[in-house]
Amino acid sequence: MDFYIMTLFPDMVTDGLNTSITGRAAGKGLLSIEAVNIRDYAFNKHNSVDDYPYGGGAGMLMQAEPVYQCFQAVKEKIRINRQKKAQEDKPLRVVYLSPQGKTFCQPMAEEFAKEEELVLLCGHYEGIDERVLEEIVTDYVSVGDYVLTGGELPAMIIVDAVSRLVPGVLHNDVSAEFESFKDSLLEYPQYSRPEVWHEKRVPEVLLSGHHANVEKWRREQSVIRTAKNRPDLLEQAVLSEAEKELAGQIMKDDKERGW
Amino acid sequence: MDFYIMTLFPDMVTDGLNTSITGRAAGKGLLSIEAVNIRDYAFNKHNSVDDYPYGGGAGMLMQAEPVYQCFQAVKEKIRINRQKKAQEDKPLRVVYLSPQGKTFCQPMAEEFAKEEELVLLCGHYEGIDERVLEEIVTDYVSVGDYVLTGGELPAMIIVDAVSRLVPGVLHNDVSAEFESFKDSLLEYPQYSRPEVWHEKRVPEVLLSGHHANVEKWRREQSVIRTAKNRPDLLEQAVLSEAEKELAGQIMKDDKERGW
Repeated sequence: MDFYIMTLFPDMVTDGLNTSITGRAAGKGLLSIEAVNIRDYAFNKHNSVDDYPYGGGAGMLMQAEPVYQCFQAVKEKIRINRQKKAQEDKPLRVVYLSPQGKTFCQPMAEEFAKEEELVLLCGHYEGIDERVLEEIVTDYVSVGDYVLTGGELPAMIIVDAVSRLVPGVLHNDVSAEFESFKDSLLEYPQYSRPEVWHEKRVPEVLLSGHHANVEKWRREQSVIRTAKNRPDLLEQAVLSEAEKELAGQIMKDDKERGW
Repeated sequence: MDFYIMTLFPDMVTDGLNTSITGRAAGKGLLSIEAVNIRDYAFNKHNSVDDYPYGGGAGMLMQAEPVYQCFQAVKEKIRINRQKKAQEDKPLRVVYLSPQGKTFCQPMAEEFAKEEELVLLCGHYEGIDERVLEEIVTDYVSVGDYVLTGGELPAMIIVDAVSRLVPGVLHNDVSAEFESFKDSLLEYPQYSRPEVWHEKRVPEVLLSGHHANVEKWRREQSVIRTAKNRPDLLEQAVLSEAEKELAGQIMKDDKERGW
């Protein structure tokens, strides 16, 4: 899979993604990550890409033309690559990272992972001129309800979440399944050696070798944890009657603050 | 404000945060970002920090002791710094980035921004031994409902969101207010020069100079956009009767897919 990230901070993106699993996968040729500098497509002598917003307001806006020209360059790269690989020329998925977008989630990551290429557009300053967004963007995506200085970290989040769904990227294909959000429940607590650490023992059941009891204990812990931290997830979870009662009890006992 | 990030990938974190606004703020001494390598506190000759989970399951787990020792080192750094600045020695806020945590949001960013220091712990592999988390972590935080390869990008998200709330970090103090999520509505579309681009004109009202009409148009656009992309936010928004009707109409017309 090929990621193209349109940004004013290409180093931030490539440095941040060169480590760990995404970096290794790029090394193995399973994916490529290219950051393209929007500033290279500035069309004035000051090399600037921003200007004041019409109608007033704080801050500067990225102008339409540099973003558009940058996208044309990315499109051309992709066209040539597709030709080399004898791939069909289908419409591109262009994601604009923006607090105005739909909230990124695991099913969205799974959908993006089906693409051969993904173009990510990172805004900066107060945003980007609406007209170029209308022309090139197919998906408006937000990674969460908080305000960031730009779209770079959200783009990296998406590359990371999508990459690990590309076949071969994770060491262990099982790993992607046995994870958080399984059945809409949070993961159970985990323990590793030693058996006793700071006078705390690993729960006896995990040492028992009794597989069914281990599973039972883990499932119960998942329910407890989800009820405590993310009761909103329980609506989508399929729970037994006993589990529903357990979750209800915890939510009743839990008088934590708003968030 | 001082950020300490406990991680297996210190370069990823520092490279990614050295650019843009956080980097500039660090340069001005408004904040400091230090990544501390958990691997430096490995206690065996192989320099490894992970082991198999008790009870079985895919993947490896970070062990309690290296994380604990790394935290002791961070605590000692902070103690010395506080002494230098003649600050009182109050309890530390230690955030573990985990899909099991509460979902990060703007009010949480505002709360963290009140701290003098913030310690961020990045998990990797399948997680961290529960016992050390119980001992050192004060807040479990998730940046969203998606699976990532580690806690580094989430930690960078938190540093970015919190930094921009530290007084002096943004050029324009107004900027932090005039932004997304104001009144629980998404931001209106923005336009910059030229007036006509690809045959698309800037909406006439924005060129009118009539401040009240500009505000009216922007507010309406915010309502439309929120109803289209994030109807869930409307529950918390304070809308006039006319605005409620407008939002209702859009949600009725909008037959988009699940996410």
